[in-house]
Amino acid sequence: MQPFHLPDRIEILAIDGIPEVYAGAPLAELLLAALDQSGLRLEDGDLLAVAHKIVSKSEGRLVALDTVQPSPLAESLAASFGKDARQIEIVLRESRRIVRMDAGLILSETHHGFICANAGVDTSNVPAGFACLLPSDPDRSACKLWDEIAGRTGKRIAVLITDTFGRPWREGLTNVAIGIAGFAPLLDYRGQRDEHGHLLSATVIAAADELAGAAELVMGKTSRRPAAIIRNYSPARGSGAASELIRPAERDLFR
Amino acid sequence: MQPFHLPDRIEILAIDGIPEVYAGAPLAELLLAALDQSGLRLEDGDLLAVAHKIVSKSEGRLVALDTVQPSPLAESLAASFGKDARQIEIVLRESRRIVRMDAGLILSETHHGFICANAGVDTSNVPAGFACLLPSDPDRSACKLWDEIAGRTGKRIAVLITDTFGRPWREGLTNVAIGIAGFAPLLDYRGQRDEHGHLLSATVIAAADELAGAAELVMGKTSRRPAAIIRNYSPARGSGAASELIRPAERDLFR
Repeated sequence: MQPFHLPDRIEILAIDGIPEVYAGAPLAELLLAALDQSGLRLEDGDLLAVAHKIVSKSEGRLVALDTVQPSPLAESLAASFGKDARQIEIVLRESRRIVRMDAGLILSETHHGFICANAGVDTSNVPAGFACLLPSDPDRSACKLWDEIAGRTGKRIAVLITDTFGRPWREGLTNVAIGIAGFAPLLDYRGQRDEHGHLLSATVIAAADELAGAAELVMGKTSRRPAAIIRNYSPARGSGAASELIRPAERDLFR
Repeated sequence: MQPFHLPDRIEILAIDGIPEVYAGAPLAELLLAALDQSGLRLEDGDLLAVAHKIVSKSEGRLVALDTVQPSPLAESLAASFGKDARQIEIVLRESRRIVRMDAGLILSETHHGFICANAGVDTSNVPAGFACLLPSDPDRSACKLWDEIAGRTGKRIAVLITDTFGRPWREGLTNVAIGIAGFAPLLDYRGQRDEHGHLLSATVIAAADELAGAAELVMGKTSRRPAAIIRNYSPARGSGAASELIRPAERDLFR
């Protein structure tokens, strides 16, 4: 296997000027207009990172809290956590399984298989009275965006839809990939040799998650910047799905 | 609290030309020579990311396997995992506690408090017959490097020492911060409001880990590139320690 050709220099470019996104909004068009307004033009090989929230909003994945009837479990959890029972009900509905529930935190396995706090349900950066769900199929959302952008620009780019997840053992959240199109999420070094001739037997890098984290460095949480371009990341070729980043239960010691 | 000022554009620049590092090697000097050779010049505000392996090597943290007498536990684990008992003995010595041990994997809490595979002990990118340990105090190593580089260049940079760790639930390793100097590892948005006026109550971003992941995108594992510059990441100011990224046991549901 050939060593990966890594670039000497990568740029991460913020995209400003994306308006509030409503259900049914033409996301590719809004992103291209914002790129234009930011003085940027897509190039072949660019990776477009997009916070899931604008994807979810364009797909109508906002739920009005007043339309939600909490279950008895949601009511009882809400009482003990001091939280909104309707919001907890939405978390329970978006969960395939509860992994841990303690200290006011619900850690769920979502229907997609992601393990994250509150099944990815979140009320930040959404209008008051609403909660935002993850896209129902983020890899499909990424493919759709990829396809629309290819159609409008003729550029072969990669698309990365992100969310910020916590993780055990370490403080703080990091941005990770929940949907991708146009590149492989994992860089598999197994079978390659390092410069001492040592055969790498276990090294697989979650490049999609590192790219998501890199994009977050310019996106932030309060800057109205739900998108960024990563330019010149050369292994961003081929195809793949963020679902490849979900570790199968039988290979996971922490389910 | 003021919103963070995030940059519009960040660059990640590979540093080529770092030679094999021996115990006692003057790391700051080698890095500055390699920067020069790569046509790069440090600027105020640059963040210098360095793979821990060259830090460990310069600090003499290679152990010759021949010098290690395995304990009975190491012998028995080695037999059942099909691994080298001397290497497992080193892992046990570098561990404060074993978190999980299954399927050939030893997940340890190191003496620093990091939770990672094999207590960070690793035989890749080191001479045959040796294993490489983590630096004994990576925050101190980062401070030392920071100090030496400031002394030689007069530049106020930030330093980030990295390793690649696995994590539960998701496939692949990501690069994370194990030692830092000259910046704060966590961006704390708590108390800020998003553009809908919603008060962020839980959002703390592990920027140091996202920076480590970003640096890995140009460093890789087989390119003899154990260092990179991240340029123009403006929140990289102030001070802090990577030990702040270790979640205290009482706040962690997965110990």
